[in-house]
Amino acid sequence: MPNGSGPDADVRMRGFARRTTVADALRWLDGQASRLGDERVPVGEAAGRVLAGEVRSEVDVPGFARSMMDGFAVRARDTSGASPYNRLRLDVIGRSMPGRPFEATLAPGQAVQIMTGAPLPDGADAVLPAEWVEIGPGHVATQGEVSPGKHVGRVGEDVAAGAVVLVGGRVLRPQDVGVLASIGQGEVPVVCRPRVRIAVTGDELLPAGSKPRGCRIVDSNGPMLVALVARDGGVPVHPGIVRDEPEAILQAMRSEADVVLVSGGSSVGQEDHAPSLVRRHGELPIHGLAMRPSSPTGMGRLDGRLVFLLPGNPVSCLCAYDFFAGRAIRALGGRSTDWPYRRIRAQTARKIVSAVGRLDYLRVRLVEGRVDPVAIGGASVLSSTTRADGFVLVPPDSEGYPPGAEVDVFLYDPHVG
Amino acid sequence: MPNGSGPDADVRMRGFARRTTVADALRWLDGQASRLGDERVPVGEAAGRVLAGEVRSEVDVPGFARSMMDGFAVRARDTSGASPYNRLRLDVIGRSMPGRPFEATLAPGQAVQIMTGAPLPDGADAVLPAEWVEIGPGHVATQGEVSPGKHVGRVGEDVAAGAVVLVGGRVLRPQDVGVLASIGQGEVPVVCRPRVRIAVTGDELLPAGSKPRGCRIVDSNGPMLVALVARDGGVPVHPGIVRDEPEAILQAMRSEADVVLVSGGSSVGQEDHAPSLVRRHGELPIHGLAMRPSSPTGMGRLDGRLVFLLPGNPVSCLCAYDFFAGRAIRALGGRSTDWPYRRIRAQTARKIVSAVGRLDYLRVRLVEGRVDPVAIGGASVLSSTTRADGFVLVPPDSEGYPPGAEVDVFLYDPHVG
Repeated sequence: MPNGSGPDADVRMRGFARRTTVADALRWLDGQASRLGDERVPVGEAAGRVLAGEVRSEVDVPGFARSMMDGFAVRARDTSGASPYNRLRLDVIGRSMPGRPFEATLAPGQAVQIMTGAPLPDGADAVLPAEWVEIGPGHVATQGEVSPGKHVGRVGEDVAAGAVVLVGGRVLRPQDVGVLASIGQGEVPVVCRPRVRIAVTGDELLPAGSKPRGCRIVDSNGPMLVALVARDGGVPVHPGIVRDEPEAILQAMRSEADVVLVSGGSSVGQEDHAPSLVRRHGELPIHGLAMRPSSPTGMGRLDGRLVFLLPGNPVSCLCAYDFFAGRAIRALGGRSTDWPYRRIRAQTARKIVSAVGRLDYLRVRLVEGRVDPVAIGGASVLSSTTRADGFVLVPPDSEGYPPGAEVDVFLYDPHVG
Repeated sequence: MPNGSGPDADVRMRGFARRTTVADALRWLDGQASRLGDERVPVGEAAGRVLAGEVRSEVDVPGFARSMMDGFAVRARDTSGASPYNRLRLDVIGRSMPGRPFEATLAPGQAVQIMTGAPLPDGADAVLPAEWVEIGPGHVATQGEVSPGKHVGRVGEDVAAGAVVLVGGRVLRPQDVGVLASIGQGEVPVVCRPRVRIAVTGDELLPAGSKPRGCRIVDSNGPMLVALVARDGGVPVHPGIVRDEPEAILQAMRSEADVVLVSGGSSVGQEDHAPSLVRRHGELPIHGLAMRPSSPTGMGRLDGRLVFLLPGNPVSCLCAYDFFAGRAIRALGGRSTDWPYRRIRAQTARKIVSAVGRLDYLRVRLVEGRVDPVAIGGASVLSSTTRADGFVLVPPDSEGYPPGAEVDVFLYDPHVG
């Protein structure tokens, strides 16, 4: 033989004996992926993180009565009866600025010039808007009356001491971070982000950033998985291509991580090392799925880590990530298991054919608002997922859809379409 | 006078003489915010960035014919007539693995064991699936026939050399990054991210992370704006609270940045330094808006930078950011000017009242699918935006909505509701 070796007698070159349904795989997975523990992060870094538990305020916000207007702090009763025809004069005895309060107490007939946000002086109970007064030297004359509390922000108006400000499980919005800062939270308890080791195998692969040459291709799954993991709130760790040898793969799978994604070598061929490694050193209850693409996907555990064996074909890798790994990563991080894809309803432009007994993931375009399957290629054609606007699922009990059927479309870009 | 000073004769404590409509302000703004230049980033960091221009592939992907199955590379004609009742024998002369091709040429009657993704040997034109063959020592017997090209991924099947892979303006998806890696792009041309200097003013403010004390409150706008800018693809720069003095504010506004956000002191009070500074050293064509909250908002330019004067009241700050600053930041970064909020239609649970002549931004909750205004407080109550699910706009020509009216709701969390 001029090259390589002949087929070994013990080589298993067969398909999967049995394929797990997607529903069963999800059921197993949802029992495995429970929320990680908590950590504390500085409030300025908390946006987009998942709040670990209820936050109560220890303080009133504001902690003092404050003016809501630029104007004059007064005793409301001193303005009683004031009108354009009955201007009432008040002596201006000082000024209250934000952070620089007026320190004395207002006596009857007195006013204090006050800025928006400045503390209301003792004795004052209302603010006269600047527009209502005529300003003279050392006094003002008001043309209107105010009732007690007018234009005054009361203590605890925004947040009362003891109140629950935010409940756990929430993805923190920009304004949530503002509120947490305002109540004096220096650090915020958030759910830990799952650490996700990406182990891309394949001796034919060159690292992203290389030029493809000869029969070597460039790793596309690695950078794609890094971006997917980051999108789902995980911390991706992708130190480079893993040699296609059992020892190297096992070592990568034993990295410090909550989740391991092995890309490539996930099937039952002789060079598919990862499944037997997981089976030997951990457990692999799920291997082989009734879906297309991504049927050669496996899921198991190794020393406490969740391990996903993702097919090397890039469309299969994306699909298997989205169905299983992404869901687990979001769940570990305390996020919704729902897809981060927007779902819309649209009509099929053409017939969609699918085999009964498996779930189909079809890349589609929206053409004039109608669903058109992307015609090109199989699971190896990653560009089909860049040309597609999203995907349609055909459930295992369906043979597909006729033209004009209403279907759910999941959009890759949540803000588009 | 026991404290502070009396009102000065030249103090302008009045409202805005004239308010610009939101539509006019947006018209001005859209003429100012044109896309920044390009930069190149490593392909692994390109996800979520905006592609600056069309990318064409210089190579075919794959660059060689490859097997789509684990099986045996054959000459299709050698399998002609094979069936379970007519098994045809082929000599296995070697093996082709991904990255480790079989180097010789297949002669008639020969086969090469081949793995998924491995290069098809010269002379072969199809792949026999492993399930169809019986493996013997040095040979296989096939029970089926294959046609030329069967189970072979052809050269350029994924991406053809010279083809446009992605067009400019696209926010790069995880799979786009995979495709860009696969064609050998080491760096990707993307639109620069706008640098956004956040200048929070107010002598009453303590930096985020502090505890509020006495008449000093904690900066909530700073961390909120940092998160908003990051959300919109900008690079926030927030080195700390800016002293409420003209010199310090001017210096902050002259920072190295594409956009400056001044928070606080944006109105026409005597301590509102920023507007006159922008007017004196640059231009401030827009100051005072027909909207609530956020009427004391200004927009202008200073030495080429876009400057936004945002009100200090946190709800006003959020609203003014979202209406104007965020839009400009997204436009500078090559992104859609549309809000990153999902819009849904829902019915009002109660009457919504608004004054004619101004645009109203109302925080609302969705209660059993119906729109319920958040009843608490004004523009100073930031917690109203954490209790709200989103907001409703009432246009300037409307007095509001009756109960049961269908309105657009913009959801703060795009994936919720």
